[in-house]
Amino acid sequence: MAFPREDLPPQVRIHEVGPRDGLQNEKAVVPAEVKAEFIHRLAAAGLGTIEATSFVHPKWVPQLADAERLYPLLADLPQEVRLPVLVPNERGLDRALELGAREVAVFASATESFARANLNRTVDEALAMFEPVVCRARDEGLTVRGYLSMCFGDPWEGPVPVAQVVRVCRALDAMGCAELSLGDTIGVATPGHVTRLLSALHEAGLLASGLAVHFHDTYGQALANTLAALQAGVTTVDASAGGLGGCPYAQSATGNLATEDLVWMLHGLGIETGVDLGRLSATSVWMAEWLGRPSPSRTVRALTGTGSADHESAGSTAPSPKES
Amino acid sequence: MAFPREDLPPQVRIHEVGPRDGLQNEKAVVPAEVKAEFIHRLAAAGLGTIEATSFVHPKWVPQLADAERLYPLLADLPQEVRLPVLVPNERGLDRALELGAREVAVFASATESFARANLNRTVDEALAMFEPVVCRARDEGLTVRGYLSMCFGDPWEGPVPVAQVVRVCRALDAMGCAELSLGDTIGVATPGHVTRLLSALHEAGLLASGLAVHFHDTYGQALANTLAALQAGVTTVDASAGGLGGCPYAQSATGNLATEDLVWMLHGLGIETGVDLGRLSATSVWMAEWLGRPSPSRTVRALTGTGSADHESAGSTAPSPKES
Repeated sequence: MAFPREDLPPQVRIHEVGPRDGLQNEKAVVPAEVKAEFIHRLAAAGLGTIEATSFVHPKWVPQLADAERLYPLLADLPQEVRLPVLVPNERGLDRALELGAREVAVFASATESFARANLNRTVDEALAMFEPVVCRARDEGLTVRGYLSMCFGDPWEGPVPVAQVVRVCRALDAMGCAELSLGDTIGVATPGHVTRLLSALHEAGLLASGLAVHFHDTYGQALANTLAALQAGVTTVDASAGGLGGCPYAQSATGNLATEDLVWMLHGLGIETGVDLGRLSATSVWMAEWLGRPSPSRTVRALTGTGSADHESAGSTAPSPKES
Repeated sequence: MAFPREDLPPQVRIHEVGPRDGLQNEKAVVPAEVKAEFIHRLAAAGLGTIEATSFVHPKWVPQLADAERLYPLLADLPQEVRLPVLVPNERGLDRALELGAREVAVFASATESFARANLNRTVDEALAMFEPVVCRARDEGLTVRGYLSMCFGDPWEGPVPVAQVVRVCRALDAMGCAELSLGDTIGVATPGHVTRLLSALHEAGLLASGLAVHFHDTYGQALANTLAALQAGVTTVDASAGGLGGCPYAQSATGNLATEDLVWMLHGLGIETGVDLGRLSATSVWMAEWLGRPSPSRTVRALTGTGSADHESAGSTAPSPKES
């Protein structure tokens, strides 16, 4: 009988993406002051890395058009709270530098179709666009994260060959990205695919210590995939408070792995995160109330009793077999 | 870098519990004809084991009071489709035998609190009640499954010691149960706990081939737990079509692991199930429409576009970082 390895990491760093990835597709524009309070509450709940916003052109992501207004509202957070921001190009980097950002992230694609859809470029053209951004950010002493979308499946291309992902990862690594976040943007990955990709990256010299995983829960697979990633040595996991956000290219809009579901698993596994799950859930409920609909996180619902209409019928009838 | 073992099973048997465990807490009584059609559709989708109903006293579970009417409606199903039924005591067994059931299941508890709440007995009194049932069922040539509730956490007692679960498993095994289903009735388990319990059972001589796992998704952990169970050699997994059902004792009523989410993972892992995921999802949508609310299964929602109001805002706005 086989058992999983016992050597799971003692600690996992959660890269919280709720304020950026979680909110960016919200129709109702959330005021900068509300976003700032959200980020403060997340930090108070123990999250040490919170992706704050994105310096994209306001035309593309109106929700994040207030980056210049938001970022200064975070100045009173403790220095040890990391607040990475997305910079899609040199202009974005300029804006981030002006505000004193210390960490930035670029956003590449593993597939040609998504590079075209999202960046209007080929994969290599996108990499060429990012190279001077990464280079200059490093010259300025910033830490750079490289996001890689569509690492497992692509809505137009289907399953994505592992070798294709490895090639783009190597390019981002060679540019000087300190960390690569492997995105399952449409949520189709399963654990064996995760293991295969991480194994291929390991063989290519990209160690798990420099990798993060970014799973979506579109098909309910995010936590099982996370477990496979932990078993492969990954110690940084992206998640979104309350499960905020989603990818409009996925058939269903079910979104990011909920930070609370992740924390429940990690703490159950005896893995430290520094997160206070009660405070975090309360924060997600607060944000959900602001947005006007319940959190899709199962853990948030279970801990706070904020269910949806889906489940309203249960809870009041006989449990299970009694004697006949 | 550690990788999970490659020796996952080539095949998994899904023990479908939707018609019994999934429906039993529904307030609106589903007519026997609808249940029969549900079961026929599940069989047509490739599910080979479908728990059909329960021979409990109608007073306790009104939804399943129609067992005598339902069971004969399944007579035209192929002989190879297994249709286990729940029998809580000798009277229930009498009723099942009269109808020609070939497989039965008894329902024990790993904790005193739940044994008291659910069976109004101590754990040992419940085992004593089941013993003649199991014995006579076996004499009659029936296969007997033993369910064990609250194997990981208990709403009154908290975490359940592994040794306590092993003790009750050994008792059910000694009675002659051909299979034991380990239930995480309130959905609190995490993968390391699953591994520890299966390891302890292995050491006690209870092999994984005679075990099934029955996870609830209350905290979103069911699939990660299933992965841990597969890695420990388990090849039978309980699930409920569309994620129907739940445990009223859990704080949230989020229910059983959805069969579709399970099948997505298993097929992604290259594990055969015999299930046609499209037909199964269509069946769950049909049942959900009958019940008047969307399926909580993420895979059903993703495959069929039947989201809930939770997610209605995404899907129509800009995806992610475009150039600034």
